[in-house]
Amino acid sequence: MKTILDEIKWNEAGLVPAIAQQHDSGKVLMVAWMNREALAATLAEGRAVYYSRSRKKLWRKGEQSGHVQKLKELRLDCDSDAVLIQVEQVGGIACHTGRHTCFYRCAEGGAWREVEPVVKDPAEIYRPQSP
Amino acid sequence: MKTILDEIKWNEAGLVPAIAQQHDSGKVLMVAWMNREALAATLAEGRAVYYSRSRKKLWRKGEQSGHVQKLKELRLDCDSDAVLIQVEQVGGIACHTGRHTCFYRCAEGGAWREVEPVVKDPAEIYRPQSP
Repeated sequence: MKTILDEIKWNEAGLVPAIAQQHDSGKVLMVAWMNREALAATLAEGRAVYYSRSRKKLWRKGEQSGHVQKLKELRLDCDSDAVLIQVEQVGGIACHTGRHTCFYRCAEGGAWREVEPVVKDPAEIYRPQSP
Repeated sequence: MKTILDEIKWNEAGLVPAIAQQHDSGKVLMVAWMNREALAATLAEGRAVYYSRSRKKLWRKGEQSGHVQKLKELRLDCDSDAVLIQVEQVGGIACHTGRHTCFYRCAEGGAWREVEPVVKDPAEIYRPQSP
Protein backbone atom coordinates (compact mmCIF):
# COMPACT_ATOMS: atom_id res chain seq x y z
CA MET A 1 0.00 0.00 0.00
CA LYS A 2 1.36 3.37 -1.01
CA THR A 3 1.68 5.69 1.95
CA ILE A 4 2.28 9.41 2.22
CA LEU A 5 5.91 8.59 3.03
CA ASP A 6 6.39 7.14 -0.45
CA GLU A 7 5.76 10.51 -2.05
CA ILE A 8 8.62 12.15 -0.22
CA LYS A 9 11.89 12.63 -2.06
CA TRP A 10 14.44 11.64 0.55
CA ASN A 11 17.95 12.91 -0.18
CA GLU A 12 20.97 10.71 -0.87
CA ALA A 13 21.28 10.10 2.88
CA GLY A 14 17.59 9.21 3.17
CA LEU A 15 16.68 12.46 4.90
CA VAL A 16 14.48 15.53 4.50
CA PRO A 17 14.75 18.81 6.37
CA ALA A 18 11.86 19.34 8.78
CA ILE A 19 10.89 22.82 9.89
CA ALA A 20 9.06 23.06 13.20
CA GLN A 21 6.73 26.01 13.64
CA GLN A 22 4.76 26.92 16.76
CA HIS A 23 1.20 26.39 15.57
CA ASP A 24 -0.45 29.45 17.12
CA SER A 25 2.24 32.14 17.03
CA GLY A 26 3.81 31.11 13.72
CA LYS A 27 7.28 31.33 15.27
CA VAL A 28 9.78 29.12 13.48
CA LEU A 29 11.34 27.08 16.26
CA MET A 30 13.99 24.95 14.59
CA VAL A 31 14.97 22.94 11.57
CA ALA A 32 16.21 19.37 11.90
CA TRP A 33 16.26 16.23 9.79
CA MET A 34 13.94 13.25 9.50
CA ASN A 35 14.42 9.91 7.84
CA ARG A 36 11.53 7.67 6.91
CA GLU A 37 11.50 6.00 10.31
CA ALA A 38 11.53 9.35 12.13
CA LEU A 39 8.61 10.71 10.13
CA ALA A 40 6.65 7.50 10.58
CA ALA A 41 7.27 7.74 14.34
CA THR A 42 6.27 11.41 14.33
CA LEU A 43 2.93 10.49 12.79
CA ALA A 44 2.39 7.38 14.93
CA GLU A 45 3.28 9.08 18.21
CA GLY A 46 1.89 12.54 17.49
CA ARG A 47 5.14 14.20 18.51
CA ALA A 48 8.23 15.37 16.64
CA VAL A 49 10.81 12.64 16.18
CA TYR A 50 13.94 13.63 14.28
CA TYR A 51 17.01 11.80 13.05
CA SER A 52 20.22 12.90 14.67
CA ARG A 53 22.95 12.98 12.04
CA SER A 54 25.67 13.21 14.71
CA ARG A 55 24.35 10.37 16.88
CA LYS A 56 23.04 8.45 13.88
CA LYS A 57 19.79 7.50 15.58
CA LEU A 58 16.26 8.69 16.17
CA TRP A 59 15.91 11.65 18.46
CA ARG A 60 12.58 12.02 20.20
CA LYS A 61 12.49 15.77 20.74
CA GLY A 62 12.11 16.39 24.46
CA GLU A 63 13.23 12.95 25.57
CA GLN A 64 15.75 14.51 27.97
CA SER A 65 14.39 18.01 28.46
CA GLY A 66 10.69 17.21 28.52
CA HIS A 67 10.29 19.86 25.83
CA VAL A 68 8.24 17.66 23.57
CA GLN A 69 6.77 19.02 20.33
CA LYS A 70 3.18 17.84 19.95
CA LEU A 71 2.27 17.42 16.30
CA LYS A 72 -0.61 19.55 15.03
CA GLU A 73 -0.12 19.39 11.27
CA LEU A 74 2.30 18.02 8.69
CA ARG A 75 2.88 19.64 5.32
CA LEU A 76 5.00 18.79 2.30
CA ASP A 77 6.49 21.25 -0.16
CA CYS A 78 6.14 21.40 -3.94
CA ASP A 79 9.39 19.54 -4.58
CA SER A 80 8.46 16.88 -2.01
CA ASP A 81 11.85 17.30 -0.37
CA ALA A 82 11.05 19.33 2.76
CA VAL A 83 8.38 19.06 5.43
CA LEU A 84 6.82 21.66 7.70
CA ILE A 85 5.33 20.62 11.01
CA GLN A 86 3.04 22.74 13.11
CA VAL A 87 3.67 21.89 16.73
CA GLU A 88 2.77 22.80 20.25
CA GLN A 89 6.12 23.37 21.93
CA VAL A 90 5.78 22.03 25.47
CA GLY A 91 7.52 24.30 27.97
CA GLY A 92 7.87 26.97 25.32
CA ILE A 93 11.51 26.01 24.80
CA ALA A 94 12.71 24.43 21.56
CA CYS A 95 16.41 25.28 21.80
CA HIS A 96 19.05 23.45 23.81
CA THR A 97 20.30 26.89 24.89
CA GLY A 98 17.05 27.34 26.84
CA ARG A 99 15.49 29.74 24.35
CA HIS A 100 12.05 29.60 22.74
CA THR A 101 13.52 29.26 19.25
CA CYS A 102 16.83 28.05 17.85
CA PHE A 103 16.83 31.10 15.56
CA TYR A 104 17.88 33.52 18.25
CA ARG A 105 20.63 35.39 16.41
CA CYS A 106 19.82 38.23 14.06
CA ALA A 107 22.16 39.85 11.55
CA GLU A 108 22.55 43.49 12.52
CA GLY A 109 25.24 45.89 11.41
CA GLY A 110 27.55 43.14 10.24
CA ALA A 111 27.31 41.03 13.40
CA TRP A 112 25.06 38.37 14.87
CA ARG A 113 23.10 39.81 17.77
CA GLU A 114 21.17 37.66 20.24
CA VAL A 115 17.55 38.77 20.16
CA GLU A 116 15.78 36.02 22.12
CA PRO A 117 16.05 35.68 25.90
CA VAL A 118 17.12 32.51 27.69
CA VAL A 119 13.87 31.28 29.22
CA LYS A 120 15.53 28.64 31.39
CA ASP A 121 19.15 27.84 32.20
CA PRO A 122 20.19 24.73 30.21
CA ALA A 123 21.88 23.43 33.39
CA GLU A 124 18.39 23.29 34.90
CA ILE A 125 16.84 21.74 31.82
CA TYR A 126 19.34 18.94 31.42
CA ARG A 127 20.09 18.33 35.11
CA PRO A 128 20.58 14.61 35.78
CA GLN A 129 17.56 12.99 37.38
CA SER A 130 17.71 12.40 41.12
CA PRO A 131 18.24 8.72 41.95
CA MET B 1 37.91 40.97 8.46
CA LYS B 2 35.62 38.40 9.98
CA THR B 3 32.11 38.70 8.64
CA ILE B 4 28.82 37.18 9.72
CA LEU B 5 29.25 34.68 6.88
CA ASP B 6 32.31 33.23 8.58
CA GLU B 7 30.25 32.07 11.53
CA ILE B 8 28.00 29.92 9.38
CA LYS B 9 28.69 26.20 9.24
CA TRP B 10 28.28 25.44 5.55
CA ASN B 11 27.71 21.76 4.81
CA GLU B 12 30.06 19.53 2.81
CA ALA B 13 28.62 21.07 -0.38
CA GLY B 14 29.11 24.60 0.96
CA LEU B 15 25.39 25.15 1.54
CA VAL B 16 22.91 25.92 4.30
CA PRO B 17 19.13 25.51 4.18
CA ALA B 18 17.34 28.85 4.13
CA ILE B 19 13.74 29.10 5.31
CA ALA B 20 11.75 32.01 3.93
CA GLN B 21 8.91 33.30 6.07
CA GLN B 22 6.43 36.03 5.18
CA HIS B 23 7.36 38.74 7.67
CA ASP B 24 3.90 39.87 8.71
CA SER B 25 1.75 36.73 8.51
CA GLY B 26 4.40 34.28 9.72
CA LYS B 27 3.54 31.93 6.86
CA VAL B 28 6.47 29.69 5.94
CA LEU B 29 6.82 30.16 2.19
CA MET B 30 9.61 27.82 1.14
CA VAL B 31 12.93 26.31 1.98
CA ALA B 32 15.84 26.47 -0.43
CA TRP B 33 19.62 26.47 -0.23
CA MET B 34 22.22 29.21 -0.09
CA ASN B 35 25.95 29.10 -0.56
CA ARG B 36 28.24 31.84 0.68
CA GLU B 37 27.89 33.82 -2.53
CA ALA B 38 24.09 33.57 -2.44
CA LEU B 39 23.85 34.79 1.14
CA ALA B 40 26.29 37.62 0.45
CA ALA B 41 24.14 38.62 -2.54
CA THR B 42 20.97 38.37 -0.45
CA LEU B 43 22.45 40.84 2.04
CA ALA B 44 23.95 43.13 -0.59
CA GLU B 45 20.83 43.28 -2.75
CA GLY B 46 18.19 43.11 0.00
CA ARG B 47 16.36 40.29 -1.75
CA ALA B 48 16.48 36.49 -1.48
CA VAL B 49 19.15 34.91 -3.65
CA TYR B 50 19.41 31.14 -3.45
CA TYR B 51 21.73 28.56 -4.92
CA SER B 52 20.06 26.18 -7.33
CA ARG B 53 21.47 22.69 -6.79
CA SER B 54 19.99 21.45 -10.07
CA ARG B 55 21.22 24.35 -12.20
CA LYS B 56 24.38 24.77 -10.12
CA LYS B 57 24.17 28.54 -10.08
CA LEU B 58 22.73 31.47 -8.17
CA TRP B 59 19.00 31.85 -8.41
CA ARG B 60 17.64 35.32 -7.82
CA LYS B 61 14.16 34.50 -6.55
CA GLY B 62 11.67 36.22 -8.84
CA GLU B 63 14.08 36.77 -11.73
CA GLN B 64 11.60 35.19 -14.14
CA SER B 65 8.31 35.51 -12.30
CA GLY B 66 8.81 38.93 -10.75
CA HIS B 67 7.94 37.32 -7.42
CA VAL B 68 10.92 38.76 -5.62
CA GLN B 69 11.38 38.22 -1.89
CA LYS B 70 12.44 41.47 -0.24
CA LEU B 71 14.67 40.83 2.76
CA LYS B 72 13.39 42.09 6.10
CA GLU B 73 15.52 40.11 8.56
CA LEU B 74 18.12 37.36 8.62
CA ARG B 75 18.52 34.94 11.51
CA LEU B 76 20.91 32.09 12.26
CA ASP B 77 20.14 29.02 14.36
CA CYS B 78 21.98 27.66 17.39
CA ASP B 79 24.03 25.18 15.37
CA SER B 80 24.90 27.87 12.81
CA ASP B 81 23.83 25.55 10.02
CA ALA B 82 20.44 26.97 9.00
CA VAL B 83 19.17 30.47 8.30
CA LEU B 84 15.71 31.98 8.55
CA ILE B 85 14.83 34.98 6.44
CA GLN B 86 11.83 37.20 6.99
CA VAL B 87 10.69 38.46 3.61
CA GLU B 88 8.05 40.46 1.87
CA GLN B 89 6.82 38.16 -0.87
CA VAL B 90 6.10 40.37 -3.86
CA GLY B 91 2.93 39.27 -5.66
CA GLY B 92 2.05 37.01 -2.74
CA ILE B 93 3.28 33.98 -4.67
CA ALA B 94 6.36 32.04 -3.57
CA CYS B 95 5.65 28.74 -5.31
CA HIS B 96 6.27 27.91 -8.96
CA THR B 97 2.82 26.27 -8.94
CA GLY B 98 1.31 29.74 -8.48
CA ARG B 99 0.49 29.29 -4.81
CA HIS B 100 1.31 31.56 -1.90
CA THR B 101 3.47 28.93 -0.22
CA CYS B 102 5.35 25.88 -1.43
CA PHE B 103 3.97 23.96 1.56
CA TYR B 104 0.53 23.50 0.06
CA ARG B 105 0.01 19.81 0.79
CA CYS B 106 -1.21 18.64 4.16
CA ALA B 107 -1.19 15.08 5.51
CA GLU B 108 -4.78 14.07 6.13
CA GLY B 109 -6.16 10.58 6.56
CA GLY B 110 -3.11 8.92 5.05
CA ALA B 111 -2.96 11.12 1.94
CA TRP B 112 -1.55 14.47 0.90
CA ARG B 113 -4.35 16.96 0.39
CA GLU B 114 -3.89 20.31 -1.35
CA VAL B 115 -4.93 23.03 1.06
CA GLU B 116 -3.70 26.20 -0.62
CA PRO B 117 -5.35 27.68 -3.70
CA VAL B 118 -3.55 28.48 -6.93
CA VAL B 119 -3.42 32.28 -6.91
CA LYS B 120 -2.25 32.59 -10.50
CA ASP B 121 -1.83 30.09 -13.32
CA PRO B 122 1.89 29.29 -13.75
CA ALA B 123 1.42 29.60 -17.51
CA GLU B 124 0.59 33.25 -16.88
CA ILE B 125 3.46 33.73 -14.47
CA TYR B 126 6.16 32.28 -16.68
CA ARG B 127 4.79 33.41 -20.04
CA PRO B 128 7.62 34.44 -22.39
CA GLN B 129 8.02 38.18 -22.68
CA SER B 130 6.60 39.87 -25.75
CA PRO B 131 9.32 40.91 -28.20
